[in-house]
Amino acid sequence: MSKLKVFLKPKEEFRLKDGENFVYSNEIDKLEGDIKSGEIASVYSSRGEFIGKEFLNTNSKIFVRILSRKDVDLDKNFFKKLIKEANDSRIDLGFDNSYRLFFSEADGIPGLIIDKYDNYLVIQISSYGIDQRKQMFVDIMVELFNPKGIYERSDLPSRSKEGLEQFKGVLYGDVPDEIIIYENHIKLAIDVKNGQKTGTFLDQKANHYAIKSYVKNKDVLDCFSHIGGFALHAASFGAKEVLALDISKDATLQIEKNAKLNGFSNVKTEVCDVFDKLREFNKENRKFDVIVLDPPAFVKKKEDIKKAYQGYKEINLQAMKMLRSGGYLITCSCSHYMYPELFLEMIADATLDSNRKVQMIDFKIQDADHPVLFSADASLYLKYVVVKVSDHA
Amino acid sequence: MSKLKVFLKPKEEFRLKDGENFVYSNEIDKLEGDIKSGEIASVYSSRGEFIGKEFLNTNSKIFVRILSRKDVDLDKNFFKKLIKEANDSRIDLGFDNSYRLFFSEADGIPGLIIDKYDNYLVIQISSYGIDQRKQMFVDIMVELFNPKGIYERSDLPSRSKEGLEQFKGVLYGDVPDEIIIYENHIKLAIDVKNGQKTGTFLDQKANHYAIKSYVKNKDVLDCFSHIGGFALHAASFGAKEVLALDISKDATLQIEKNAKLNGFSNVKTEVCDVFDKLREFNKENRKFDVIVLDPPAFVKKKEDIKKAYQGYKEINLQAMKMLRSGGYLITCSCSHYMYPELFLEMIADATLDSNRKVQMIDFKIQDADHPVLFSADASLYLKYVVVKVSDHA
Repeated sequence: MSKLKVFLKPKEEFRLKDGENFVYSNEIDKLEGDIKSGEIASVYSSRGEFIGKEFLNTNSKIFVRILSRKDVDLDKNFFKKLIKEANDSRIDLGFDNSYRLFFSEADGIPGLIIDKYDNYLVIQISSYGIDQRKQMFVDIMVELFNPKGIYERSDLPSRSKEGLEQFKGVLYGDVPDEIIIYENHIKLAIDVKNGQKTGTFLDQKANHYAIKSYVKNKDVLDCFSHIGGFALHAASFGAKEVLALDISKDATLQIEKNAKLNGFSNVKTEVCDVFDKLREFNKENRKFDVIVLDPPAFVKKKEDIKKAYQGYKEINLQAMKMLRSGGYLITCSCSHYMYPELFLEMIADATLDSNRKVQMIDFKIQDADHPVLFSADASLYLKYVVVKVSDHA
Repeated sequence: MSKLKVFLKPKEEFRLKDGENFVYSNEIDKLEGDIKSGEIASVYSSRGEFIGKEFLNTNSKIFVRILSRKDVDLDKNFFKKLIKEANDSRIDLGFDNSYRLFFSEADGIPGLIIDKYDNYLVIQISSYGIDQRKQMFVDIMVELFNPKGIYERSDLPSRSKEGLEQFKGVLYGDVPDEIIIYENHIKLAIDVKNGQKTGTFLDQKANHYAIKSYVKNKDVLDCFSHIGGFALHAASFGAKEVLALDISKDATLQIEKNAKLNGFSNVKTEVCDVFDKLREFNKENRKFDVIVLDPPAFVKKKEDIKKAYQGYKEINLQAMKMLRSGGYLITCSCSHYMYPELFLEMIADATLDSNRKVQMIDFKIQDADHPVLFSADASLYLKYVVVKVSDHA
């Protein structure tokens, strides 16, 4: 049983009772016991009412992160049960080869992400309490999943806010430089050591598949294509030709490698600034049947929304203009600051300027292995929208 | 060429330039020509700038409904082209046996709906201009689609606002009392003469299919099940047992008939008030693995939102309590007044009261044959949300 106690200032418990999990340092009235970062403490309201148990971090603005609302032992079994439940939930939904096995607070442990790539696991840690117990989490993963290797990808600038250094490296077994995974029926070579996030983006699996209805025998342009999730799916679904654009040479090389791996000969790539390229294509009056826009997050902090909105609007407007009548625009945003209503408002705004008939025919979010917690605004972050673009009558 | 001219009051053109299609009578400055309801008029701004062409209705608050922004002839060919394009667009998306062929302003003709049920078409008319040209639309449908029969389902109370009587009846060929259609792989017997809307709801086809991931070997409760879209799909995907609840005896008889038609023996029905039944089940501590809530629109006008919100919240909260840990709640709203953010807020609100762990794992909208027009708020009306409900750690 923990002997550390955190007492909140009056009324500060209301927000936590409303389902939020973070307590900020300025909300705390007093501390009791031998206060040490990374230890487990119990939180009480100003009136002494028990609220929950959590990790303490005296170096962070997020002073505590609530793990349980019950007065249970936060021991190895507690965490093991949560991680097993999260994995069982993915299996129940049909996930198999590769998926997000554990998604931070949405699965009950803020600051912990585990991704499964075939027989390997990648862990990302962004809280002090978890970092202190790293070996325990490795043990849990080995006991539950018996992976060939576990790699840590905690190369996150935000770790400094927790008083943690950035880190990456092998934690268990052997981890090769390249892992071949399946995303739906597509083979993808993944670099978990240097790729984006923990190797790649697993959150668009169902959306990648959903473009099946739009691409057969079509000219497809995939913008910000990263390692080719949309482009390769388009190729597999019978696109006439796919052109994938990305600013990173490494990304386009990876697409070409992945196209070869799947035996596709209809995928071309180009290294370029997508904003410039879309303007250039419009000048040349170049047309496509299907355009995919899946840009990186333009908004990384709240103050940037206006600028980001203009960026999203520009690429969406350019794409609307470049589509043949009856064509499809598949447009995404992975920034939670660009919340769903604002994203739709931006598309409506681009629609007006495009002077074309634009009908929304699909709206989806991130895949089910990235669950959304209603109390955590940031957890609903991915929007996937399909609009049909035609000439006006 | 039309000789009727409608001149707007100063600044009233801005809203129309923003993509809206309705002009209200109080926005009009003066009329020129032989004004007659149902005729085609050209609309001009106060400064004499051409805005668009449309149907006039002097009896309606919606004075004109813009059909084209160009100065083209609004003749049979104009409408035929729009209807053909809408149908081509559905075919391109893979729709085949039964679908919404034409969706009012979202497809370019406000007040006209055409639904395809196997080889039959059902038309619904809610504008005076279209009603005046009914025979022309029948001719167009026959020329384009050669249906076995066309039925009109204009039994809409809202027709009185246009100065139109309610009407239903055969317009062409023969229309049987029952039509067997396919929704995905499920056979459904449809009564286009007396069923809801134009016979049934076609807008959940993809969402009915999407429950495949949740129902295998599960106890499924389908609330407000109408003729059994969700219940029959659950049965086909291997649910252990399905209980379908509806207040209408006709609906439950139809479900039983449809279950027999598909050879399902695991579907039970019960005629009841769903609100009462859910309360009763909770008292009895009855549990399910999967619960579907697809209620009729509780909100039919803006003033009713608060009451409707409470209604939605009550059934969602009851359902959350009745699920076994790790169960799925599939919750829908088909009222556009219950806009997406408000619907999610309601689920978050129910989540807090339920004292359970609730993770959103899917969010979808109406099917692609019911396209959304950004300028028409009402056209994004259907929300389909899946949450996983578990006990707290």
